[in-house]
Amino acid sequence: MIKKILIANRGEIAVRIARACAEMGLRSVAIFSEADRFSLHVKKADEAYCIGSEDLAGYLNPHRIVNLAIETGCDAIHPGYGFLSENPELARICTLRGVRFIGPDARVIRLMGDKTEARRAMMQAGVPVTPGSAGNVENLDEALKEAERIGYPIMLKATSGGGGRGIRRCNDKKELKANYERVISEATKAFGSADVFIEKCIVNPRHIEVQILADRHGNVAHLFERDCSIQRRNQKLIEIAPSPQLTPEQRACIGELAVRAARAVNYENAGTVEFLLTAQGEFYFMEMNTRIQVEHTITEEITGIDIVKEQICIAEGQPLSFTQEEVQPRGYAIQFRINVEDPKNDFLPSFGRLTRYYAPGGPGVRTDTAIYTGYEIPPHYDSMVAKVIVWGRTWAETVARGQRALNDMMIGGVRTTIPFYQEILDHPDFQAGRFDTGFLAAHPELTHYSLKRSPEETTLAIAAAIAAHVGF
Amino acid sequence: MIKKILIANRGEIAVRIARACAEMGLRSVAIFSEADRFSLHVKKADEAYCIGSEDLAGYLNPHRIVNLAIETGCDAIHPGYGFLSENPELARICTLRGVRFIGPDARVIRLMGDKTEARRAMMQAGVPVTPGSAGNVENLDEALKEAERIGYPIMLKATSGGGGRGIRRCNDKKELKANYERVISEATKAFGSADVFIEKCIVNPRHIEVQILADRHGNVAHLFERDCSIQRRNQKLIEIAPSPQLTPEQRACIGELAVRAARAVNYENAGTVEFLLTAQGEFYFMEMNTRIQVEHTITEEITGIDIVKEQICIAEGQPLSFTQEEVQPRGYAIQFRINVEDPKNDFLPSFGRLTRYYAPGGPGVRTDTAIYTGYEIPPHYDSMVAKVIVWGRTWAETVARGQRALNDMMIGGVRTTIPFYQEILDHPDFQAGRFDTGFLAAHPELTHYSLKRSPEETTLAIAAAIAAHVGF
Repeated sequence: MIKKILIANRGEIAVRIARACAEMGLRSVAIFSEADRFSLHVKKADEAYCIGSEDLAGYLNPHRIVNLAIETGCDAIHPGYGFLSENPELARICTLRGVRFIGPDARVIRLMGDKTEARRAMMQAGVPVTPGSAGNVENLDEALKEAERIGYPIMLKATSGGGGRGIRRCNDKKELKANYERVISEATKAFGSADVFIEKCIVNPRHIEVQILADRHGNVAHLFERDCSIQRRNQKLIEIAPSPQLTPEQRACIGELAVRAARAVNYENAGTVEFLLTAQGEFYFMEMNTRIQVEHTITEEITGIDIVKEQICIAEGQPLSFTQEEVQPRGYAIQFRINVEDPKNDFLPSFGRLTRYYAPGGPGVRTDTAIYTGYEIPPHYDSMVAKVIVWGRTWAETVARGQRALNDMMIGGVRTTIPFYQEILDHPDFQAGRFDTGFLAAHPELTHYSLKRSPEETTLAIAAAIAAHVGF
Repeated sequence: MIKKILIANRGEIAVRIARACAEMGLRSVAIFSEADRFSLHVKKADEAYCIGSEDLAGYLNPHRIVNLAIETGCDAIHPGYGFLSENPELARICTLRGVRFIGPDARVIRLMGDKTEARRAMMQAGVPVTPGSAGNVENLDEALKEAERIGYPIMLKATSGGGGRGIRRCNDKKELKANYERVISEATKAFGSADVFIEKCIVNPRHIEVQILADRHGNVAHLFERDCSIQRRNQKLIEIAPSPQLTPEQRACIGELAVRAARAVNYENAGTVEFLLTAQGEFYFMEMNTRIQVEHTITEEITGIDIVKEQICIAEGQPLSFTQEEVQPRGYAIQFRINVEDPKNDFLPSFGRLTRYYAPGGPGVRTDTAIYTGYEIPPHYDSMVAKVIVWGRTWAETVARGQRALNDMMIGGVRTTIPFYQEILDHPDFQAGRFDTGFLAAHPELTHYSLKRSPEETTLAIAAAIAAHVGF
């Protein structure tokens, strides 16, 4: 039985995990850097320990984290996303030292982290993969030969890459020559491996991913798909569940493919199988993320299943709390990643102190965050500081609710991506549910909005000033 | 077509209606008293008009409100709950002056407002009513005779009463004699009518009510029931949907009875049919509320249907957007009415300035409110300032989530009912889903908690103080 969990993460996802622990009656332990001392995740856990004055090192040291878990009497570690979540070392050390790792085992993390190995495993399982090199390409000559065979444009990819990094598109021989050493150098620096491979470049596909959950009793279920096509430079900004662009047949097909992919590698715990959907309606396996995703929230909204709790139960050895037939999606959900960036200024980061924070409310609105009025957003971490999730019975209602919720939200003192998202929601193609990964690049005008200060903001600023004046 | 709606209410329900308007692309007009100038409902509507320096008079003047609607180009009025929502005059004047009233017509409001007339209509329709006098009792002698026939204890009730007022329990002849003139005097003052009647007193029943929606095309559907048994002095504090205490047969039966009740009076728009459920499993019609209820939120959470939007569409003449078969409830929802009262001090009102307000977030949590940090809660109105609604897949998950959400919420500067609700959630009988309207009276110890200041609160107070110091 799991009784106490160390949360090896920070910010909103650490708050999310602490909430799941609280609802399950489990004790939780937070870790934090000096820069994160005032983050809400520190307070939402039952205990919290500073893991160093450095901004990142403590969050990235698996030995230190496992030691702390053992010292504080934790019997499990939840890695969240990012940081060590897809580092097989943390999973391996956990197993070695008798602490449960809430995720798949090190072998599967390693397999899926190696893009060419993952491709091979999927091909063997009969899951279609993007046309590409059979494995890594060893040198520029082989790269040029493979590219010729597959046909330009191609993508040159770091085998250990992920999160949209270590990828370059090459439209012809000349570009491949120019990019080859560059990607190898990037990959070596970012992922500690010089391995690269080649895939056919699918121009402006849709990014469709399937949430799966698998227990150690052989039950594998999918929780339907998410459409993450609204991206900027390979970074997801807005995610939707289910995709408004799939036919029922495509939905059934991709769900079945994802379950097959998970079964092929004896997957356990929560995972996401990412696919590209071409304009011609073909699905290609892209990669599998062996952790909770930022956008798990929208799947929770349409299915009612708490994925983080399910992860903890799976790690404890319990069977899934539902059958595939019992998962009946309802309505649509959209997640907006609220980043402290200035879209009008090439998305320049905008860290600083929040003079005002007011979460949207009312029907069908959820907010996940670790910020609050007066909080100073540290510049050392991700610019995503909150997630606003809306649910509606129909696509049209969900879009309208998203517009209303973003309008309700108030963040003062920093620039955010909120007005940019409002422009996207107003776009007729988005409203019609028609968009692919090229959508944002094709619509640079969406960043040319004019900031209007709403009457609410003025009133709240006055009220807050009065409150400050009378003294806390 | 409705294009612009005047919201004849204040506070959280006015915000709720303005949000529905925003999501439907309709313009909204708020009204406010001087005391309400800084309430969020004023800012959430597209336009707002002060309807007088008096605290209540403006909200209670149907002529003035309809005039304002016409002057500002509104084609409909939403009355919310309380205030003029069940005053047939507002509905009548609307019809007379060509403004749509978002609710049933004046005839039905009047019928259901007269408790003895409503009882008669229900008896004719074959809906069981509590044993009682056939109509009003004309004098003390008749009251005593009727009480003898029905059997003590009995309830002496004002015919025009509602909201838990104008009701006295009489355990014997002596108490009936003592209370008779008192109830008549109360009824005359509060409701402008001296009519009273007698009902058998069902000792500690469960309060079960059914949400219905009916359009003008003859479609009547129920949205399942709510259990509002957690009451203090006839005031609902915690509401639950669906009731954890009904069998599937009882659920089907009460839904059918509610639809029959609505059909019997040609009901149109949203309404609630309230029943008492006896310990022996019998349902008795209590009353019908001809308006949106405070607790409509939990029905929205389990069914996914936006009841306020549905009201507006019905008033426009549209058919219901769903069929009875399509209403499939999912999971459980609990609403907590956050009142600014001190439960440890006999629920003494605790109005004042909010030094801190932080809404709970994460999965399955919704907040409806018009307050914010720095807002001064005026003493002239209801003490309910926010509603926290939680949803979960099972009853156990919903209770745990409620506990977590109340723990997440931060309200500083006033006393609230939150710690009292946390005690209720901890009680084994509540957790087992076993409670009736006598639960709170039977457990006075639930108000004897000790207030513990959570570490979060301290941190946020510090951060807010820093924010105040650096200046807005």
